[in-house]
Amino acid sequence: MAFSESEIIALLARVFASNNPDVEVGIGDDAAVLRTSSRTVLTTDMAVEGVHFRQEWSSAFEIGRKVTAANLADVYCMGAKPTFLVVAVSLTGTESLTWIEELARGILFEANLVGASIVGGDLVKGASVTISISALGEVEKPILRSGAEIGDQVYLSNLPGWSRAGLAILTAGLPIESELAKRAVAAFKSPSVNYKYAANLVGATAMCDLSDSLMTQAEQLATASGVNFGIDFGLFASAPDFVELQNLCNEIGKDIHDLVLGGGEDHVFMATGKNLPGLLIGEVTAGCGLKLRGNEKAPDPWRHFD
Amino acid sequence: MAFSESEIIALLARVFASNNPDVEVGIGDDAAVLRTSSRTVLTTDMAVEGVHFRQEWSSAFEIGRKVTAANLADVYCMGAKPTFLVVAVSLTGTESLTWIEELARGILFEANLVGASIVGGDLVKGASVTISISALGEVEKPILRSGAEIGDQVYLSNLPGWSRAGLAILTAGLPIESELAKRAVAAFKSPSVNYKYAANLVGATAMCDLSDSLMTQAEQLATASGVNFGIDFGLFASAPDFVELQNLCNEIGKDIHDLVLGGGEDHVFMATGKNLPGLLIGEVTAGCGLKLRGNEKAPDPWRHFD
Repeated sequence: MAFSESEIIALLARVFASNNPDVEVGIGDDAAVLRTSSRTVLTTDMAVEGVHFRQEWSSAFEIGRKVTAANLADVYCMGAKPTFLVVAVSLTGTESLTWIEELARGILFEANLVGASIVGGDLVKGASVTISISALGEVEKPILRSGAEIGDQVYLSNLPGWSRAGLAILTAGLPIESELAKRAVAAFKSPSVNYKYAANLVGATAMCDLSDSLMTQAEQLATASGVNFGIDFGLFASAPDFVELQNLCNEIGKDIHDLVLGGGEDHVFMATGKNLPGLLIGEVTAGCGLKLRGNEKAPDPWRHFD
Repeated sequence: MAFSESEIIALLARVFASNNPDVEVGIGDDAAVLRTSSRTVLTTDMAVEGVHFRQEWSSAFEIGRKVTAANLADVYCMGAKPTFLVVAVSLTGTESLTWIEELARGILFEANLVGASIVGGDLVKGASVTISISALGEVEKPILRSGAEIGDQVYLSNLPGWSRAGLAILTAGLPIESELAKRAVAAFKSPSVNYKYAANLVGATAMCDLSDSLMTQAEQLATASGVNFGIDFGLFASAPDFVELQNLCNEIGKDIHDLVLGGGEDHVFMATGKNLPGLLIGEVTAGCGLKLRGNEKAPDPWRHFD
């Protein structure tokens, strides 16, 4: 490697420098020292080259954004606000300093969207690039997966499926020429998470984000709450971008059910409650599990780990 | 893989189940919800198969202990007490459920030594096993790397070098027959970190743990504090196990200077202050950097990242 660990750390300390008064000690000591509230959320996410991202598809900046977004979404769907991040990265030794800086700038860009600070990390050598981010957040009243109640409705912050469509386009090597194809590929590379939806949500009884497929996660939410989710695919047509996603499906030869129900990694928020904002997709009833209407075939769900 | 992600998560939730009243929400939601103090330390460490551990050398239990110890040591050397851990792991898909459970039990074993709880994690698939742990801790008055003062002495909690000796034995394929060789290999596989030393230390002005070599880290501490560390190798002979390490060096054909000054991963604590407990190895003087006496040749330092 043409540069030392201390050079990289000095670079990262510059990129991540923050004037957040709650960061008493940031990058450079054995741990960060932070002012924290009395109730804290803590979560961690790992992304692996070849599984969650590919350098031939995504820039370092896009990869940084994507991995950070996954973490921040986990904090928001607890009803919490992200405050601090630490980032552990394995590098192969073939990355340039510019690539590493762009990765850091992508992480910083996404964290800045929500006012979170990067306060520490670890750099190691490995056979492939692996990125692990842990996030702290502050919360007064956490929203759990187990809180959905019979009589609630089920809402999404946005229509899922764009990221999965982007992955399908990249995997098949399809042309990325139409505006819709570009939008899907961009959503795969760095999803635009609707943090504002989660931050302003009042009255949600349960929440999660769709990092895996809607099918998988709706069932998890229903099971955790001991209720049934009745999801009606017909309701998805109210999403402002449903027709566009349908058009893209026609363009790339995909079934929209697969993309919407089986897609993941958009980090769309799914929440239950009464008269919430967002896209109404179903209701919470007695029972335990997931019932789907308007979907003739079982989609092939995206999972990070099979 | 012969089992699903949800099976692994259910297993881990059982292994890591805790009755810690400060864990309001543990494994199973999108993030853990924790009661925290107003000043928190946060750190992260990543360990990569083939770089930090090898499955042909170490059991899953030993690997779990080792990676956790690296994290806990970072918390302690801030003058803090570890409270909560999250664990992100990439698995290749060839690991058995038993192997995964043993990894978790190793993490739990080490965390239990200090009363910390494992409250969440992430499981992903990758080409090799990578483990990333992030730790929270609580602290009233943090001990920073920058606090060493002229007139302080420099202390170690223990004699470093055993882990490096173990690595040398394993790398060279030497016989692991003598008690000393067994001890060194055990130290490499799962270092016995002297948490009690750090937890009970009063009056330290600066502290770090030796995850990299003593040479590297003494220079870092001195530079961060804007002082000079005068380290006298002759003083190491007062360590109760110095002669044993010397005997092992003769057995395996290694130079004790290389092991002690160039070794790492023992997570020995290095602290500055006046009349501290532990092994006195030198003093803090005016200047900036590191001066070594009693070492005729520059050792080959261990670094995680070159």
